[in-house]
Amino acid sequence: MRWSQTYLFTVREAPADAEIMSHQLLVRAGFIKKLAPGIFTLQNFGLRSLRKIENIIRAELDKKNCTELLMPMVQPQELWEETGRLNIDVLLKFKNRNGQLFCLGPTHEEVVTDIIRKDVKSYRDLPKILYQIQTKYRDEIRPRFGLMRGREFIMKDAYSFDIDESAAHQSYQKMKDAYEAIFTRSGLNYRIVEADAGNIGGNMTHEFQVLAEAGEDQIVSCDSCQFAANIEVAPSGLNQSKAKPPEFLKLEEFATPNLKTIGDLSKSLDIPEQQLVKTLFYMGVDGPVAILLRGADEANPVKVKSTLGLSELPMFLTEEEVLKVSGASPGSCGPVGLKIPIYLDQALQGATNMIVGANKDGWHLKNVNIDRDFQVHQFADFKFASEGETCVRCQKGKYILTRGIEVGHIFYLGTKYSKAMGANYLNKEGRPVPVEMGCYGIGVTRALQASVEQNHDKDGIIWPVPIAPYHVHICLLDLKHELSLKTVETLESSLQKAGLEVFIDDREERPGIKFKDADLLGLPLRITIGARGLEAGEVELVERKTKKMHKLAPEKVVDFCVSYIQEGLR
Amino acid sequence: MRWSQTYLFTVREAPADAEIMSHQLLVRAGFIKKLAPGIFTLQNFGLRSLRKIENIIRAELDKKNCTELLMPMVQPQELWEETGRLNIDVLLKFKNRNGQLFCLGPTHEEVVTDIIRKDVKSYRDLPKILYQIQTKYRDEIRPRFGLMRGREFIMKDAYSFDIDESAAHQSYQKMKDAYEAIFTRSGLNYRIVEADAGNIGGNMTHEFQVLAEAGEDQIVSCDSCQFAANIEVAPSGLNQSKAKPPEFLKLEEFATPNLKTIGDLSKSLDIPEQQLVKTLFYMGVDGPVAILLRGADEANPVKVKSTLGLSELPMFLTEEEVLKVSGASPGSCGPVGLKIPIYLDQALQGATNMIVGANKDGWHLKNVNIDRDFQVHQFADFKFASEGETCVRCQKGKYILTRGIEVGHIFYLGTKYSKAMGANYLNKEGRPVPVEMGCYGIGVTRALQASVEQNHDKDGIIWPVPIAPYHVHICLLDLKHELSLKTVETLESSLQKAGLEVFIDDREERPGIKFKDADLLGLPLRITIGARGLEAGEVELVERKTKKMHKLAPEKVVDFCVSYIQEGLR
Repeated sequence: MRWSQTYLFTVREAPADAEIMSHQLLVRAGFIKKLAPGIFTLQNFGLRSLRKIENIIRAELDKKNCTELLMPMVQPQELWEETGRLNIDVLLKFKNRNGQLFCLGPTHEEVVTDIIRKDVKSYRDLPKILYQIQTKYRDEIRPRFGLMRGREFIMKDAYSFDIDESAAHQSYQKMKDAYEAIFTRSGLNYRIVEADAGNIGGNMTHEFQVLAEAGEDQIVSCDSCQFAANIEVAPSGLNQSKAKPPEFLKLEEFATPNLKTIGDLSKSLDIPEQQLVKTLFYMGVDGPVAILLRGADEANPVKVKSTLGLSELPMFLTEEEVLKVSGASPGSCGPVGLKIPIYLDQALQGATNMIVGANKDGWHLKNVNIDRDFQVHQFADFKFASEGETCVRCQKGKYILTRGIEVGHIFYLGTKYSKAMGANYLNKEGRPVPVEMGCYGIGVTRALQASVEQNHDKDGIIWPVPIAPYHVHICLLDLKHELSLKTVETLESSLQKAGLEVFIDDREERPGIKFKDADLLGLPLRITIGARGLEAGEVELVERKTKKMHKLAPEKVVDFCVSYIQEGLR
Repeated sequence: MRWSQTYLFTVREAPADAEIMSHQLLVRAGFIKKLAPGIFTLQNFGLRSLRKIENIIRAELDKKNCTELLMPMVQPQELWEETGRLNIDVLLKFKNRNGQLFCLGPTHEEVVTDIIRKDVKSYRDLPKILYQIQTKYRDEIRPRFGLMRGREFIMKDAYSFDIDESAAHQSYQKMKDAYEAIFTRSGLNYRIVEADAGNIGGNMTHEFQVLAEAGEDQIVSCDSCQFAANIEVAPSGLNQSKAKPPEFLKLEEFATPNLKTIGDLSKSLDIPEQQLVKTLFYMGVDGPVAILLRGADEANPVKVKSTLGLSELPMFLTEEEVLKVSGASPGSCGPVGLKIPIYLDQALQGATNMIVGANKDGWHLKNVNIDRDFQVHQFADFKFASEGETCVRCQKGKYILTRGIEVGHIFYLGTKYSKAMGANYLNKEGRPVPVEMGCYGIGVTRALQASVEQNHDKDGIIWPVPIAPYHVHICLLDLKHELSLKTVETLESSLQKAGLEVFIDDREERPGIKFKDADLLGLPLRITIGARGLEAGEVELVERKTKKMHKLAPEKVVDFCVSYIQEGLR
């Protein structure tokens, strides 16, 4: 393809709202163009890379006997009523001309379960895995980072249907294997991490995280064993001191006027935050509860949610509610005398002589002790795991914190949707049984951008070979130089014959501009064809990734390119 | 692919709302499944055929240096305000969570013109043709016929951008050529017909109509020359009598109590409808107008619209308005004494001694003559063309009326959108000039169904080879017969090696059911592998289209299939 014959406009300035490099680069290189917040056109180069990811996904899923189909974007609201999900906040709802209620699909559990309940009759019809690659819409309140958190985006969603839990786990494992193959073949550096199932149902779930500093997710992994988890669910250890605990000292009240935060208190008393204890109040299932953590630890809302058995992320009590429950303002509260369940983070097991609020404004207590001064409802893991902590899984390695971009997420769903929607099959005994389900997503447009976030330098994108829009970028410098034109033509046709995709910059521009654009576009190999070089009998070839330059005789160029690209596709 | 390993469920009964065969067959064969009126899931076999059409489209458009991209489905309403199209009735509009106004794209002139005005700077950046294959939504009030007139559907839309009208016409011709190649390669029997441009702008437009009796469009074509047009715009001739016109007789009024329609009048007076004249009242641009046609002729609203210069299809006057303008009820009106412009269908040129309403309830006039009794504002072509009429274009052949399904429509748009949205380029003199545009659509899902409407028999679908979901359907009859299993395996791998796509019915079903399903699914070749045949040293092969049966030695099967399929792809 020649630049003059396609539609490609690079842009000098990154848009003001592009906060991260991958967003800036995709816009500047003309891969994507914003239409509205979170809504982008994929221009030709962007689409070419996207299709390569899509085709890798298709190939790997087809290997696992998954069947592709294409479900509608516009869905009747009644299906979402059946599963009780009609009010999820990203669901965009509307009426059509005839007043019928529809929504734009952010996901397709409802539609696919409707298909299954119409088609599947018997255990002989199972197992099945269906998938589609399709445009989704999530009505995000604050879309950002380009394709990373968009409103309209392309997703691969798959759904498995099995006769029982053990078969469903096999399907889950099959999809996990397929995902590993997909992300590896796409040239991404990723980690599989344990994750939170949220409200989707089921109890087994993994995320596929592309490692990148700009990622929205924090990942905890062990430097010794294979353990890795999203920080939302990564267990945090006990960190118990092995020293003999000191004697219980006498409970004392002391004045702390104007000291509201753990930081204030720590400074004023000259005690490290870690030795102070803070008291948080949440609304539990049956009313308010208190949770105590060490002063420097942060409560992890996902852990609070799961220990309290909530269906949504936990809500703090308001100041008035805290006053009602404790008799004091939030800065002066503590466990002593509370009439509500008191949970303690497990790092407080064995803690003695704690400093806590006195439930009296402007006062604290010291030498507070468990059992003597208050009763513990439950010890549990409430805090975020932290860097350097001993790995809870292997008890040997240390935790490392990195950031990632979630590009895939797989869930074992159980029968949440099949029960709600009556998707049953008849078992061998002829009895109706709800189908066991799993669901499996890949953010295809997000994976595209994640690849750029992971693979770029200050000059532009560095495409992994398997998803580069073209393989070879030829800069034709002298548009009127007969030998140059002829060389480019021969080169193009020989490279294409070898299965390589060639892009030729035939614009009337200065070499400097052509090189800058080549770096920006980021195709794996750049070949420069100019009068001077050719007359000296050599062609300049640069690897985009390493910027390593090679001077080759023209007849060696094709072999070099073919072996470089084949190596990259392996 | 084996039936047991994919997702395919055929259905015995056609759905009650499927009025035409193609809709019934696509549902029964498990190609599509209804989610809501006008909204369908494409199941695997449907998607496979669709992708083949898409790939033919891509290949032919890429040959013409068209560039593919992918624009969003969700579009800001403000773009549609710019072009004054915000109120077109099929545009589904909604607010997002933040209260911003969006709509679902039924077409993309606005979005693509927005892209162009941002990217294109100079005449050197043109010409360009952009296209996408994408899901569209039209908020049809009465969706029907399956994929034929759906709400959510897949369309290929392309847009050309040129420096002037002559260059735009070249792009138009290029796309017309590409469309011919696309529909020919897809194995469709179609006609290119002249058409109405509607409100899209521009003055040159052609439709690509797949010929089929169930088509919604009526096509007029000449049995002698190449002329063909949608009945909406097909010119209808003068049909003037060559006989010397009779003398003007004396104008007379006569009572016609209770005779309201041309039919009543014709019966009561015993005069053929064709010799009576009817008067219709429409709202013109500057107020009411009357249009006279021969009694048996039907007014063609598109022709009325274009002669009157209206922007929408014409509205009849209400009974009250007719009374106000003529002094009588609609059944008793005529031209004599009217104070509004009177248009005559050109078939009335030279008509004499006409019978018309008297503008007095219950009375008519006879011997009414042009010029003597009323003045003609304009003669024009107002009526539908009819079967057997002399071709207006060649003046030799006769019109034939057939029905078609519109699968493609191309338009020269001029500068309607570029002017409204300020999409200018700088010409050689550095002056801004609005870009000349064209737009080009293919209903991809509609083309899929049109192919079935054109190619089926009572037993099922007959896929044209180029868009069949698979090429060869193997019915494996004896699942436990060693030689059968082995033969199928060898056959599958040899056929695949030769580039053919093989589908194997390995279900535990009776042969009768397998053959019925094979006919229903409609793959081009069916091979039956059974113990009895194999032991007699022969394999049964049936051509789906002709039902011609061949008994072949197993080693001849592959060659036969390959040459049959290659012939079909040519």
